[in-house]
Amino acid sequence: MAPVFRTMTCGEVRPTHDGQHVILSGWVHRSRNLGSMVFIDLRDRYGITQVIFDPQYSPQDVYEQSKDLGNEFVVTIEGDVVMRQSPNAKIPTGLVEVRAQKLSVLSEAAVPPFPIADVTIEPHEELRLKYRYLDMRKGTIIPNLIIRHKTMQAARAALSEEGFTDVTTPVLSKATPEGSRDYLVPSRVHPGQFYALPQSPQMYKQLLMMGGLDRYFQIATCCRDEDLRADRQPEFHQIDIEMSFATREQLFPVAERVLQRVFRECRGVELKTPFRQVTYRECMDRFGSDKPDLRFAMELVNATDLAKKTSFSAFSEAISGQGEIRGLTLKGGASLSRKGIDEYQQLVAQLSFKGLAWLRLQDGVLQGSILKFIDTQDHAAWIERFAMADGDLSFILAGPKKRLLQALDQLRRRLAKDHNLIDTSRYEPLWVIDFPLFSWNEEEHRLESENHPFTSPHFDDIDFLEKDPLSVRSLGYDLVLNGYELSSGSQRIHDSRLQDRIFHLLGYTEEERLLRFGFFVEALTYGTPPHIGMALGLDRIVMILTGTENIRDVVAFPKNQRAVDLMTVAPSEVSREQLKELGIMLEI
Amino acid sequence: MAPVFRTMTCGEVRPTHDGQHVILSGWVHRSRNLGSMVFIDLRDRYGITQVIFDPQYSPQDVYEQSKDLGNEFVVTIEGDVVMRQSPNAKIPTGLVEVRAQKLSVLSEAAVPPFPIADVTIEPHEELRLKYRYLDMRKGTIIPNLIIRHKTMQAARAALSEEGFTDVTTPVLSKATPEGSRDYLVPSRVHPGQFYALPQSPQMYKQLLMMGGLDRYFQIATCCRDEDLRADRQPEFHQIDIEMSFATREQLFPVAERVLQRVFRECRGVELKTPFRQVTYRECMDRFGSDKPDLRFAMELVNATDLAKKTSFSAFSEAISGQGEIRGLTLKGGASLSRKGIDEYQQLVAQLSFKGLAWLRLQDGVLQGSILKFIDTQDHAAWIERFAMADGDLSFILAGPKKRLLQALDQLRRRLAKDHNLIDTSRYEPLWVIDFPLFSWNEEEHRLESENHPFTSPHFDDIDFLEKDPLSVRSLGYDLVLNGYELSSGSQRIHDSRLQDRIFHLLGYTEEERLLRFGFFVEALTYGTPPHIGMALGLDRIVMILTGTENIRDVVAFPKNQRAVDLMTVAPSEVSREQLKELGIMLEI
Repeated sequence: MAPVFRTMTCGEVRPTHDGQHVILSGWVHRSRNLGSMVFIDLRDRYGITQVIFDPQYSPQDVYEQSKDLGNEFVVTIEGDVVMRQSPNAKIPTGLVEVRAQKLSVLSEAAVPPFPIADVTIEPHEELRLKYRYLDMRKGTIIPNLIIRHKTMQAARAALSEEGFTDVTTPVLSKATPEGSRDYLVPSRVHPGQFYALPQSPQMYKQLLMMGGLDRYFQIATCCRDEDLRADRQPEFHQIDIEMSFATREQLFPVAERVLQRVFRECRGVELKTPFRQVTYRECMDRFGSDKPDLRFAMELVNATDLAKKTSFSAFSEAISGQGEIRGLTLKGGASLSRKGIDEYQQLVAQLSFKGLAWLRLQDGVLQGSILKFIDTQDHAAWIERFAMADGDLSFILAGPKKRLLQALDQLRRRLAKDHNLIDTSRYEPLWVIDFPLFSWNEEEHRLESENHPFTSPHFDDIDFLEKDPLSVRSLGYDLVLNGYELSSGSQRIHDSRLQDRIFHLLGYTEEERLLRFGFFVEALTYGTPPHIGMALGLDRIVMILTGTENIRDVVAFPKNQRAVDLMTVAPSEVSREQLKELGIMLEI
Repeated sequence: MAPVFRTMTCGEVRPTHDGQHVILSGWVHRSRNLGSMVFIDLRDRYGITQVIFDPQYSPQDVYEQSKDLGNEFVVTIEGDVVMRQSPNAKIPTGLVEVRAQKLSVLSEAAVPPFPIADVTIEPHEELRLKYRYLDMRKGTIIPNLIIRHKTMQAARAALSEEGFTDVTTPVLSKATPEGSRDYLVPSRVHPGQFYALPQSPQMYKQLLMMGGLDRYFQIATCCRDEDLRADRQPEFHQIDIEMSFATREQLFPVAERVLQRVFRECRGVELKTPFRQVTYRECMDRFGSDKPDLRFAMELVNATDLAKKTSFSAFSEAISGQGEIRGLTLKGGASLSRKGIDEYQQLVAQLSFKGLAWLRLQDGVLQGSILKFIDTQDHAAWIERFAMADGDLSFILAGPKKRLLQALDQLRRRLAKDHNLIDTSRYEPLWVIDFPLFSWNEEEHRLESENHPFTSPHFDDIDFLEKDPLSVRSLGYDLVLNGYELSSGSQRIHDSRLQDRIFHLLGYTEEERLLRFGFFVEALTYGTPPHIGMALGLDRIVMILTGTENIRDVVAFPKNQRAVDLMTVAPSEVSREQLKELGIMLEI
């Protein structure tokens, strides 16, 4: 006969079950032998229920057996639900307990390498990764995986309802010299040849549009063999979307509804739509970054014109070198000590800026490091430009625009963090649009695609491609949330003649085109619909939803920063025979 | 300004839109220039709408331009919906047409390598695979992909509602010497070491159970480097399920509800639950196969006892060699000509059977090849045993049981096909349970696992493991549908001591255990819940739902039988630098 392991879970038992006979199974979370009776906390995914072994109610052999239960033993217990004499208000099952009548040990447990029940002990991450299945029992990873599951389900439901088709694209894909480094897979059937794991389903999804699918999505695993950073894994996951006969006017609302549903179902948060939009140029001007955190204001200010009227040599030197003078205002920052200001001066010094000027308005009087260089009659203009109120502090920096913006972005984020300006309950999505199509490669003296060569130029700028390519905007865009890039995408080129013009501008020869883009460029010539798409970073979304900075907290079986799975010990050596079959040898 | 490509799709236009101004985009499916006007059929994924260019209504330049539209050009058309003078009842939009006022060509099209609109021309499959995106436009692949999408969505919804969590397991996995051949991925960071692509998430899902997830699912891509058969691809997909504290009494209803929902949402078919169950032994006896097609009866009959009483030497020889005599009855088969019977004799001859005996009942009289060996008084017994009615024909075969069952299974399926006994509108799922735990490896003189060494013995048979291992049933099972194995699964061993007993019986040394199963066996020792799982073959389910025998019809970008993606040309050569970085060389 098949055993019955449970009639309810350890998270479900309530006073309404008082007197009811139940079967529960789970792990022995803790046990306490009080001499005259034994208590165990029985744990499963759903909760913890207290079980009492008491010779008054429990058969003698069951009582005796209960004394030997070790932590993490897996057991089945049968008995009656009763009200507890000393309730535990901290857990949902805390008003009741189960008086054990039967006990069976399903599986004994060796002493784990770190304690499961004691959450105050945080084992070293390498140990947690090696014993991932034990780490999961500690209770932080599984809730994250459930949020991840809900995110995927919400995204799929939203996209399905909008007529998108979930299509699985190949894992064994084409090796391409573009983009990041491929993971390669040697072919046994064709020795000397290799598949590559997909860096993204980009080409496949565009081909689906050429095939007429109209609306595609997939939650895709992508692999890139890059040196890992803290927030990277060799494989990552994206909610991949593509649609035909559409522009961002149609795509953005779709993406917004997807995210709206995800945040609603996972966090109970209602994202307001439409999301704000800002052009790349304006975004850089206002925040110094193309992924600004909008949970706080502190926008950048351009004071180059005012600076020209000062006698400050650092300003005039910067201006004469095509540089600019920009800054920002920290509300209430006037109370910052000289030492406090020093810290931010050190920050910009690390970014190779010689100095960080400052002004503050206190009791209606302007003070600060550059005050003596400013005409008194200009004080009001500075105060107005920096929108200073009494008690505010402004930082001002001079230098070449690009580096200046980078530094002020860092300063802005650092100030927000130091002064608790970030409301962590807020979610502030932003579309950044109209990125430049090209950038100029100084070393090779040629144009480069900012995104990839299939990104469409802005519809209004196509005529300027040859005349003034660096002024041409693209139809590429990013979706930014709370300072993180959630998604990147673009309108794709659907006209093979326009594609040829782009290749020409990028300086590719006919041969290079074929070699690099081969069949894909041919596919474009058979009647390609206008199409547009994007990829939302699933791991990042789940990190935001769960409030973690560690990508390994939201991945079931992550690799460490050396790309090793410490649990299974992968990668590992393989046999000579396996390599021989693949026609490869080790070069050692 | 961003263009507007459509206000509705080509499948939506109806008489209710009469007089409405619309914008449509799509491919030029066909065009007809009648001299005084031009008709085009405009196609998108949703349908075909007729567009008319007529100098009476269309601006002259638009009319002129319409004459140059080639097949597969992608165009946007703006105009008014009007009722058609000669309606086309064959298509949903056939009562209306659009009078074009504006036309813009979005993308011209080279002449495709095979015609898109003419479905009577079926290009060679290699050409279809090379131009997969054009093949998709022909209209058979995309509906299959949509059924596939619906299948995945239905399965995910059903499992989510039952509390299962969708967990993505790694693509870069551990190479194992077990099972089929791995696809290997060389590690750049650890030269000389390799990842493997997962053959299935088996170990990961069991570890999730050890981690306490309780209920897991995933639609997983699995990769096996095997030589391909017609219904195989290097990568295939499974609806992978695992649950804790459960037996097949809990799992089977879950799987049944998943399939029920899939068939309801994809085919409008209501599968009756619970599905039938049969033990492996009974299944082999009745059908000669562990994956019988139950859409027709024609069960096998054992006539060994009756055969003993005949004077037919082939029977007595078989019986004295531990063989058996079995057969089956073809209803109405008495009308089969001698030549017709010959065909089936040839079939069994190919399987090394010397002869196929037959009996038929016609006008109450028994006739047949072995009639003269049967006592007249036994006629009634043979007629009864084979359940012959007037006009039936029975085939009888003698030989060793295993080969006999194989041959009769083939004969049964061939007869059903030849005589149209299969009702293709029926779906007949069947659980085959209680497979044997072990089989005997004659050559190596040792026990082998029928499934894998982690499959649990039947709860009632554990005491017989050492005494009589070959009699021990496992808790492995298959789910069969219409003659196809849809799924395979098992109760897993959760007790590390039981696992040790199994390893011992299989003859593994301690060292081999560590080498082969390493960390997994360690994981078992820390308190493992009873767990059970299965994997449903997604590709096969979609093949059944779409009625195709070709797996490539249900995969977006399939590989051919040499494991080549003809479209992207993968696998392909890679650069010397890439190999050098990976620390490998070609052995050529």
